Amino acid sequence: MPNETANSWESRAAASSFYGFTDLPTVAERGTVVVSGGHGPYVTDVHGRDYLDANSGLWNMVAGFDHPGLTRAAQEQYERLPGYHAFFGRMSDRTVELSEKLIEVSPYESGRVFYTNSGSEANDTLVKMLWFLNAQEGRPERRKILTRINGYHGVTVASASMTGKPYNSVFGLPLPGFVHLSCPHYWREGRPGESEADYVARLAQELEEVIAREGAETIAAFVAEPVMGAGGCIVPPEGYFDAILPILRAHDIAVVSDEVICGFGRTGARWGCEGYGFTPDAIISSKNLTAGYFPMGAVILGPEMADRLHRASEAIEEFPHGFTASGHPVGCAVALKAIEVILDGADGEPPLIDNVRHLIPAFEAGLARLAEHPHIGEWRGRGLMGALEAVADKAEKRPFPGHLSVSERIANACTDAGLICRPLGQSVVLCPPFIMTDAQMQEMFDKLEGALDRVFSDVA
Amino acid sequence: MPNETANSWESRAAASSFYGFTDLPTVAERGTVVVSGGHGPYVTDVHGRDYLDANSGLWNMVAGFDHPGLTRAAQEQYERLPGYHAFFGRMSDRTVELSEKLIEVSPYESGRVFYTNSGSEANDTLVKMLWFLNAQEGRPERRKILTRINGYHGVTVASASMTGKPYNSVFGLPLPGFVHLSCPHYWREGRPGESEADYVARLAQELEEVIAREGAETIAAFVAEPVMGAGGCIVPPEGYFDAILPILRAHDIAVVSDEVICGFGRTGARWGCEGYGFTPDAIISSKNLTAGYFPMGAVILGPEMADRLHRASEAIEEFPHGFTASGHPVGCAVALKAIEVILDGADGEPPLIDNVRHLIPAFEAGLARLAEHPHIGEWRGRGLMGALEAVADKAEKRPFPGHLSVSERIANACTDAGLICRPLGQSVVLCPPFIMTDAQMQEMFDKLEGALDRVFSDVA
Repeated sequence: MPNETANSWESRAAASSFYGFTDLPTVAERGTVVVSGGHGPYVTDVHGRDYLDANSGLWNMVAGFDHPGLTRAAQEQYERLPGYHAFFGRMSDRTVELSEKLIEVSPYESGRVFYTNSGSEANDTLVKMLWFLNAQEGRPERRKILTRINGYHGVTVASASMTGKPYNSVFGLPLPGFVHLSCPHYWREGRPGESEADYVARLAQELEEVIAREGAETIAAFVAEPVMGAGGCIVPPEGYFDAILPILRAHDIAVVSDEVICGFGRTGARWGCEGYGFTPDAIISSKNLTAGYFPMGAVILGPEMADRLHRASEAIEEFPHGFTASGHPVGCAVALKAIEVILDGADGEPPLIDNVRHLIPAFEAGLARLAEHPHIGEWRGRGLMGALEAVADKAEKRPFPGHLSVSERIANACTDAGLICRPLGQSVVLCPPFIMTDAQMQEMFDKLEGALDRVFSDVA
Repeated sequence: MPNETANSWESRAAASSFYGFTDLPTVAERGTVVVSGGHGPYVTDVHGRDYLDANSGLWNMVAGFDHPGLTRAAQEQYERLPGYHAFFGRMSDRTVELSEKLIEVSPYESGRVFYTNSGSEANDTLVKMLWFLNAQEGRPERRKILTRINGYHGVTVASASMTGKPYNSVFGLPLPGFVHLSCPHYWREGRPGESEADYVARLAQELEEVIAREGAETIAAFVAEPVMGAGGCIVPPEGYFDAILPILRAHDIAVVSDEVICGFGRTGARWGCEGYGFTPDAIISSKNLTAGYFPMGAVILGPEMADRLHRASEAIEEFPHGFTASGHPVGCAVALKAIEVILDGADGEPPLIDNVRHLIPAFEAGLARLAEHPHIGEWRGRGLMGALEAVADKAEKRPFPGHLSVSERIANACTDAGLICRPLGQSVVLCPPFIMTDAQMQEMFDKLEGALDRVFSDVA
């Protein structure tokens, strides 16, 4: 392990942390990167080394690591009211302001907002809302949740059950009643000779069959990321949502858009669902909601679901659910500022979403150029989220053997070069901060290209 | 609704919020209390009205609503590194420092810390850890979780399943495999003529029977608050933990102390379990961990469970679990300061836990005096958490009819008098901030006494 001494930061981290989502052999070999500061899209480790974070932290630090407006918003609220809850008919003024703002920027004319501390809690809350609502409305059997393989919705027992990643089997998950449809990934899942339209028709037919098999009257909702994030930036095939949404509507299955990653500009649109032309019954939000400056999630209920839930709660006097820090005033102050910074422009600066739209062509061109590499099978992406998928054989789309850990090696080579990107299965994912300059994007692609060359020359 | 105009804060809150844990008839009648500031143990609403918050927010704002040291700790970290995650072998320096500090102040010589954003997520994480660990160690059937009726462990699907409150039936919870033992409340549950020791023996026997019925080989853990919080400040009978822990140990059932409320001084001891003389296999922490200034939870793993989990994770290369804001650097900076403020003393001030210990005799005396009231059946409490239980008939311990909403009326009368306390079932719960002065404690009891007199003269 480099830099290892008894009292090094690396040893101290290893001795006291129980690591999540961390490849332990890599940590044992390379040591933990202990981060102590940041500027713009760069983070700085305890040895003074800078890394361009093409991961935006975890998709969320879209305004970078020293945004003065966000820092000031948090600092001022700490002076004003540094904490409060939203139970028992009390809440902070900032909480009220944020709820109004979220409804204003949502696809809804009216609605209601419920706060959590994470996207996991927001999806978990949604499940409880649906179970409660359907029971109160006299259809208690309508509890199943439909999601997709590779869809990511969180890590609580319920939101991990929604998540369609195979690693959840180590927990004995998913729970019964969480049903996973196919991952809509044409390049990987389309059959030889199958057109994109035929592939979409096949996915729609699968949905019909699953509904028939499970019984529509047992299915509460379909929850989907417009573009899958932690599944590997999976962009749905052309016409996918147009094909499946009418089927769901016909069976009275609620449609929920998990906008934890796509929301607030990541895809170039305000909401991912907007870009695919649909209005869900509710939106799950987190991450960009505070640009990573505070833990927060939200369930944004459209008017119909809001009214039904409010009536169902009135009937038993209260909705018996809530987190201690739900609607925390500092989180709400930060979120109000983040929404302003991203969507409206703040303090004389243009909105960050304008820069997202400006960067998209160069981002796509950079991915497309790297995809010419003989060991990149596909580039895919939408807006400022993209992936390059490594293959041993491009024509056959054959992956490298798992034991070679190709994407992990690419990510480690990037780290050595001062670039953070994310290995995900056989792909490398990029989701740059919205504040990136053209030059920083060039730096990102240059460093990634060097890493790809080094690793592929080793393994090929 | 008072203060109601189209643009009043109250109307704005009602139009945009989906309220959790809020009595909707009360909100409809009285309007939301919209809080905009605070000083010391008081919060201030948008109309400039002060309330002495005898609820410490939600048990958590123990250092009050304008603590300069906590505010500065947060503000400084926002300048330094305003956000980062703890995935992929990276984490902030503050995260490492807090893990070391938490182990230092824990009952353990060594251990490992896993961060979440709430107590709910920490309990949910614990469940996943146990399911994972037991499956990896070749006993995948060992999944059941034992908790107690009225125990409160959170609101995610899994942590709500642990929670032993009847309201969770509206969600169709608990899930199968979450087993609730009796609530250890001698005053309410002891049989006529049964001694406290006999009552404890009966609870121990129940535990033996439940283990026999369920099968010890199917039970992963027993999780308990040393003193139940949201169950109504239920103090276990003398000898309770001494009687049940050997039974659990004999059956190789992990013992976990949910210290979300008790931890960091609420009971007068550093940890609630300390006061009852036991060392659990893991500790669940939240709330006082940041004194409410940031959403954070932690699973503090004792050395044995830490080692076993680390080995089980190494065997599959990673523990596939984690929250985006796990180990957030601002939260860690705040928690480091909160621990210092509460346990060590900071910036020339004595540790707040000293003031807790100073206040306990007056707190107990005040509760005991109010319990002389003919309509208070019992006072109970430990440290700075206490409850008064209203009864229609003291000798028979007969509660008031539910439709009278007596505790809700007492809490509302308190609010009118500028005091916030919490109605819980038929009791009123007090959990004052650790910074309270003697005069403020007197103010709390005076206002509560006035409210009790008014409400009991109305209903009795």
